[in-house]
Amino acid sequence: MPLEYINNHTITFLISCPDQSGIVAAVSSFIFQHNGNIIESDQYSSSQHNGTFFMRVSFAEDSFTLKAPALIDTFQPIARMFDMEWNVYYSRQRKRACIFVSKADHCLIDLLWRWNSKELMMDITCIISNHRDLELLAAMYDIPYYYFPIHKESRQQDQQRMLDFLHGKVDFLILARYMQILEPFFVSTYPHQIINIHHSFLPAFVGANPYERAFERGVKLIGATAHYISNELDEGPIIAQDAIHCNHRDTLEALIRKGRDVERRVLAEAVRLHIEDRVLVHKNKTIVF
Amino acid sequence: MPLEYINNHTITFLISCPDQSGIVAAVSSFIFQHNGNIIESDQYSSSQHNGTFFMRVSFAEDSFTLKAPALIDTFQPIARMFDMEWNVYYSRQRKRACIFVSKADHCLIDLLWRWNSKELMMDITCIISNHRDLELLAAMYDIPYYYFPIHKESRQQDQQRMLDFLHGKVDFLILARYMQILEPFFVSTYPHQIINIHHSFLPAFVGANPYERAFERGVKLIGATAHYISNELDEGPIIAQDAIHCNHRDTLEALIRKGRDVERRVLAEAVRLHIEDRVLVHKNKTIVF
Amino acid sequence: MPLEYINNHTITFLISCPDQSGIVAAVSSFIFQHNGNIIESDQYSSSQHNGTFFMRVSFAEDSFTLKAPALIDTFQPIARMFDMEWNVYYSRQRKRACIFVSKADHCLIDLLWRWNSKELMMDITCIISNHRDLELLAAMYDIPYYYFPIHKESRQQDQQRMLDFLHGKVDFLILARYMQILEPFFVSTYPHQIINIHHSFLPAFVGANPYERAFERGVKLIGATAHYISNELDEGPIIAQDAIHCNHRDTLEALIRKGRDVERRVLAEAVRLHIEDRVLVHKNKTIVF
Amino acid sequence: MPLEYINNHTITFLISCPDQSGIVAAVSSFIFQHNGNIIESDQYSSSQHNGTFFMRVSFAEDSFTLKAPALIDTFQPIARMFDMEWNVYYSRQRKRACIFVSKADHCLIDLLWRWNSKELMMDITCIISNHRDLELLAAMYDIPYYYFPIHKESRQQDQQRMLDFLHGKVDFLILARYMQILEPFFVSTYPHQIINIHHSFLPAFVGANPYERAFERGVKLIGATAHYISNELDEGPIIAQDAIHCNHRDTLEALIRKGRDVERRVLAEAVRLHIEDRVLVHKNKTIVF
Repeated sequence: MPLEYINNHTITFLISCPDQSGIVAAVSSFIFQHNGNIIESDQYSSSQHNGTFFMRVSFAEDSFTLKAPALIDTFQPIARMFDMEWNVYYSRQRKRACIFVSKADHCLIDLLWRWNSKELMMDITCIISNHRDLELLAAMYDIPYYYFPIHKESRQQDQQRMLDFLHGKVDFLILARYMQILEPFFVSTYPHQIINIHHSFLPAFVGANPYERAFERGVKLIGATAHYISNELDEGPIIAQDAIHCNHRDTLEALIRKGRDVERRVLAEAVRLHIEDRVLVHKNKTIVF
Repeated sequence: MPLEYINNHTITFLISCPDQSGIVAAVSSFIFQHNGNIIESDQYSSSQHNGTFFMRVSFAEDSFTLKAPALIDTFQPIARMFDMEWNVYYSRQRKRACIFVSKADHCLIDLLWRWNSKELMMDITCIISNHRDLELLAAMYDIPYYYFPIHKESRQQDQQRMLDFLHGKVDFLILARYMQILEPFFVSTYPHQIINIHHSFLPAFVGANPYERAFERGVKLIGATAHYISNELDEGPIIAQDAIHCNHRDTLEALIRKGRDVERRVLAEAVRLHIEDRVLVHKNKTIVF
Repeated sequence: MPLEYINNHTITFLISCPDQSGIVAAVSSFIFQHNGNIIESDQYSSSQHNGTFFMRVSFAEDSFTLKAPALIDTFQPIARMFDMEWNVYYSRQRKRACIFVSKADHCLIDLLWRWNSKELMMDITCIISNHRDLELLAAMYDIPYYYFPIHKESRQQDQQRMLDFLHGKVDFLILARYMQILEPFFVSTYPHQIINIHHSFLPAFVGANPYERAFERGVKLIGATAHYISNELDEGPIIAQDAIHCNHRDTLEALIRKGRDVERRVLAEAVRLHIEDRVLVHKNKTIVF
Repeated sequence: MPLEYINNHTITFLISCPDQSGIVAAVSSFIFQHNGNIIESDQYSSSQHNGTFFMRVSFAEDSFTLKAPALIDTFQPIARMFDMEWNVYYSRQRKRACIFVSKADHCLIDLLWRWNSKELMMDITCIISNHRDLELLAAMYDIPYYYFPIHKESRQQDQQRMLDFLHGKVDFLILARYMQILEPFFVSTYPHQIINIHHSFLPAFVGANPYERAFERGVKLIGATAHYISNELDEGPIIAQDAIHCNHRDTLEALIRKGRDVERRVLAEAVRLHIEDRVLVHKNKTIVF
């Protein structure tokens, strides 16, 4: 039996549905009846979210007796009874990522190191950039690096080419300081599957040059925000945020330098939450289990 | 119907037992069959804890059809089947605390404020001290304050008197910088029910004068640790810890002053976790749900 | 000799002037010539602030040979030579504060405790409120409490009455969740002498109901900002900021509760910096030494 | 004029001497007389350090009229008058580091990235390791990598060989998880010039396997400590410390993984403080300006 099929692999359900009694019992009984051993289970419901119920349950794959297609058929009646939106994820099927970068390397280095040291359990299909600067870094980790220039006048076509190229090859995208605004048709191809790092504590300093404006305002904290891309700029559901202290001695350059530490940490955290299937999106907010 | 019986009251189970499949299904089905609506459910098991399974599940009381004594009888067969240690808690039965203080007021002020602003849902039966200094503070909140002096030569009897006095009146004790070592017979009367705040980041600086020794060692962080009292000094299960930065400019007095902020925050956090029935003790460690 | 004249009292200069060589030498030589022993000295200048130089120097009062009026006359030529704006502060002359409150008590309790435990070395002249709710708290610390109602239709006159009342009695004002917008004539009477706590991480969520909007946006951090009041709402120079993590489980009420911890901490920090003469304002930014 | 001689270069004095009046005036007047423009100046003295006075002053090199040897001769009388221990550092003479590693790469990657992105202004002479694992990483940055195996039976000679090799080539050493205990003769060759990262919050968990013991003790925070190596194991002066939260879900492996983030951050911070000449050692403590 191939190594990757044994030990530690899990199946995870992400569920949302109208709140009512019996959901946890129904789901956990289903898992038990088919010999699954629940490893983590978390749920949330609140009147402040229109009575929607959210659940993440994760159980060992090895003892579970239903194989992939049967699982869906067998669970379907339960899903229908509770009017569920649901997805099932197999940890053994690692998500395939494409990382988009521009010239800044700090987020990419950090992602690659964490991936290489098994902290981020994903496959990296390729790195795409509108510059050639980080090619060597990709080579060091044996990851294909594709140069896709973006020209002002051919922006739509340029992005369409990337979309065509990626078709069928990836599950989600990471914008690791990519610095280009993606077109609506591009974004809607990967709904809640494009993670961006915004170099400010949103919603403070939306838009361009957040460090410059933070510097001008004389703030004492700078932050970073990882969020799913939506078609309204800087407005998608927030996955993770953090902030660090700064003071009057920090020049604009120092803020940028300090900011890099918090950016890379927040982006890595958001990627980890995404690939571990811990994020549910409800309207413009996330439930992070 | 009396006000306290409606709205928001929950029943919480804390369970530990040998790990096996079907526990979550059994517990959640039990709750569902008797019309309970699960609000929070968390569990944990790990080979690193000898295959012990831990669970906390909390559900709405109002729709639940089993009343207190029936609940225990009805659940007993399930508990027996899985060899469970279990406890059930009703949020409507607020835990009764006695706060022990000496002369320092910062932890007490903070606990009283949080209690008064409904952040800590407990009853405070009384405050006990070996000094009269904080009597006025207790009066401000209309809480009985009892002066129990402790003399070196009559320590055992002095503590026995407190024990007799508290008998039947309280569920747990909070040592809010009490500065007295409790006798083994006292501690064993309230197993895992006495919360202490130690003014260091245990296990660094166990024993007396931690700030003095932190100052001498030139550390750059000082911390605080809230833990259950065991009969080995500074050795009980840790509930919460935190730390803050300090530097060479901090005199011993400044460390003590800074430390108060982290002490009161950590103690309040531990009390909150305890009264919300979020802490399970396994050997000398806590599982905090 | 009266106790307050000996030991530990310091004289502090706050200076700003166009940057050039020799300023530190001139100031420190002046202090030395008159037998002052420098305890702290900090300075800052940056091309990014139009070549302005900022300095804070603090020295022991007891050995210093120039008394108050002579000090000013003797230093004046140096100040003129470097085109300085400067102020001198005596730590023995504790600043006199008036604390403005509404109904929320958390900031006030914290300020009073820190003041009472000698962490905030100021005099509290009185507490002013548009409600009677916190009268008892003031009484506990023997601080006069004045009820100044504010009516919509007589807002200007109401605030003028407070201004008249305070005339000559206080050096600075602390708005400890006062919830009223002060009129321009009021604000300009105390330039850079009114400290406000805004319950968000400015400039995110300026204006009303920041927690509500933070909740709606689904942020993962909430913050607080202490700043000097200017006549543009939520726009004065920022003195201190901090933030804490939150998540989807935090209801609006929970955000408010969590926020109180960071609000009181940030306000107390700003007050400490102000009364220790550590804050210089330059345009809309602060230099905090 | 070669580029590195102009713009932004500074000269820094680190001074310690018995406390008395006039030190700041004497030093700043000296700098002014020779046309230096003070950029940063910080000092500290405390009765709790036996009346020792510590000072760091940094001024622009370009306008300063005394060249290197003349500076020392000219300042010597002042130094003698105040009985100073003092050192002078030129920012243009970047410190030369040797980084020691074993198999773990996280600290090295972080140091190299920060060095490469100009955050750490030092020269890296070489990397030394008792394993070959990280050779490729060094190659990527064009840094010589030397394999120096350490054998139990020839430990002294092995370390002597490294010492001979480094002679005259480096100013300080960074132990980036080197995992070998350096011999006393080695340590005393570089007094206060060997920076180590200890993977715990010292003095908690001194010695081997700190994460294992933190796990066993059930702590809720894990930390890291960067310190100068002394000849008592884990006992040298602490330069920087930090800590992060953990909980019962963290397996030993998870603690190690989480710990890496705080280790690399704390080590990089200590290296930055060292190369910017911000650390003075007094007995077993540091003054960090």
